[in-house]
Amino acid sequence: MDEFALISRYFASVGHHQGVELGVGDDAAIIAPRPDEAWVVATDTLVAGVHFPELEPADAIAYRAVAVNVSDMAAMAAQPRYCTLALTMPTADLEWINAFAQGLRDAVTASDLALVGGDTTRGPLTVSLTVIGSGLSSALLRRSGAAVGHEILVSGCLGDAAAGLAALLDGRSPSVERERLIQRFRRPPSRVALAIDNAAFIGAAIDVSDGLLADAAHIAAASNVAINIDTERVPLSADLIASSGPDQALSHALTGGDDYELLISAPSRAVPQLQRAGFFAIGQCIAGTGVLVDGAPATGHRGYRHFDNAAG
Amino acid sequence: MDEFALISRYFASVGHHQGVELGVGDDAAIIAPRPDEAWVVATDTLVAGVHFPELEPADAIAYRAVAVNVSDMAAMAAQPRYCTLALTMPTADLEWINAFAQGLRDAVTASDLALVGGDTTRGPLTVSLTVIGSGLSSALLRRSGAAVGHEILVSGCLGDAAAGLAALLDGRSPSVERERLIQRFRRPPSRVALAIDNAAFIGAAIDVSDGLLADAAHIAAASNVAINIDTERVPLSADLIASSGPDQALSHALTGGDDYELLISAPSRAVPQLQRAGFFAIGQCIAGTGVLVDGAPATGHRGYRHFDNAAG
Repeated sequence: MDEFALISRYFASVGHHQGVELGVGDDAAIIAPRPDEAWVVATDTLVAGVHFPELEPADAIAYRAVAVNVSDMAAMAAQPRYCTLALTMPTADLEWINAFAQGLRDAVTASDLALVGGDTTRGPLTVSLTVIGSGLSSALLRRSGAAVGHEILVSGCLGDAAAGLAALLDGRSPSVERERLIQRFRRPPSRVALAIDNAAFIGAAIDVSDGLLADAAHIAAASNVAINIDTERVPLSADLIASSGPDQALSHALTGGDDYELLISAPSRAVPQLQRAGFFAIGQCIAGTGVLVDGAPATGHRGYRHFDNAAG
Repeated sequence: MDEFALISRYFASVGHHQGVELGVGDDAAIIAPRPDEAWVVATDTLVAGVHFPELEPADAIAYRAVAVNVSDMAAMAAQPRYCTLALTMPTADLEWINAFAQGLRDAVTASDLALVGGDTTRGPLTVSLTVIGSGLSSALLRRSGAAVGHEILVSGCLGDAAAGLAALLDGRSPSVERERLIQRFRRPPSRVALAIDNAAFIGAAIDVSDGLLADAAHIAAASNVAINIDTERVPLSADLIASSGPDQALSHALTGGDDYELLISAPSRAVPQLQRAGFFAIGQCIAGTGVLVDGAPATGHRGYRHFDNAAG
């Protein structure tokens, strides 16, 4: 049983539902205490050795912790506003904390957030961030908004972050391309403005955190459609191809997570507008279930799942 | 440098401040997007082996994770409404998760909360919960509301949870008293209704999580007063005295954390009302700084701090 099944099976329905428009299972929750206003809440945790290498610089860890949560806001077309930080660390190394605070400041400033609270505790290095955003209920995006006939688009090149992470871990000599890929892993860009500006043209949305195929599968499941990806249209950066070669580059793009680009569906008539805004059309929603790659079932391609080999 | 200094030094002023009435450093943050309405946000993390014994039952871990955050809402006199869960665990043991979900359900139901989102990841067992509550800005309580001449009151017996935790760890044979103390550690009561019903009579408020003396020191520092505690008036349960003896009982009450009772200040004229509601008067706010125990400086008595022996 993987984490997605765990979440929906055990935590999907805990507590009351007054004011909860959208609960566990999407990129973020939607709370609508008033009809004209929605609050959007997302929590993401980064664990040392799981979500980033143990020796990552503290500023990069902090930046990524904010960026992955901001990305959940982008996937809802919500404006991130406030965040809280739960920081667990084995020791209080002031140099490390200073660098962490700098990365936090950079990320919070880049997304116009306020850090409003938090908790520091002793323990294995874990960074858990909660972001609260807002938007108009009717303008927020969900995974369930795709329909047969929609096109599938992505907001930028995929695979760079996975190649950057691989470059961090393989210990080979640095190059300009490898450094740029590492930066794509460490400081994912914000797609909030892109999402909000184009929300009216978008059907479903998710951010690519687990990998293109895995995240496409989430849209497919939530929207009751199948999604076909045309691999030759998936945008790959020159840095990725130069450092990984074309085959490995495509593999990173299909199954590597951590890019935090937006994956959306949209009716065909909206595609020119979305392409002008920077999206790339890479597939279609068709009748059926699951994800296809160039028309064939995407078996053997899977994104990152935390508990794939767990008991049960 | 301890965690309180860490928080205020590094994270107190990160990001914009629009709509932030109260940021890092109190029990919870206050966000007031509209003049007549405030949202209150608190995050608390529980780490295995730090905040609870490694072998605690999963339902007790979940219950406590909710209760400690609800307690932060009580300390602000805010109504807890929504929560998100960031659960990090080494393996996906379905029996464990099932028990955890049951404890979560119990706690969320007891406090009329909705779990609206979260994140499950693989890593060392860590439970980070964020609670979002609401209230009228003018009715919310802060640590800074004490004044010279205020009485200091507490909402219930102190020391039970510390004795319960000690009983969990010492491996001695169970008794009825020890079992009740353990339950006080595992399932702290909610003081939300007590706080909201009596907010108009209260000056400053905090919840006793780090220990009476440590938490009194937070009120003293935030309010620019000194606080004197009359030890003979500190309420001790019969279970605590029976299991620990009177000296150890008082020590648990002064420095043991985890009781999650409310510690408040109030003008003398409000004391009869607060006593009828269940509070116990245990001291006074006087001119000066810091905390006194029976008129003498409280040196040697300190609550739990995470990074006391850290570098710097």
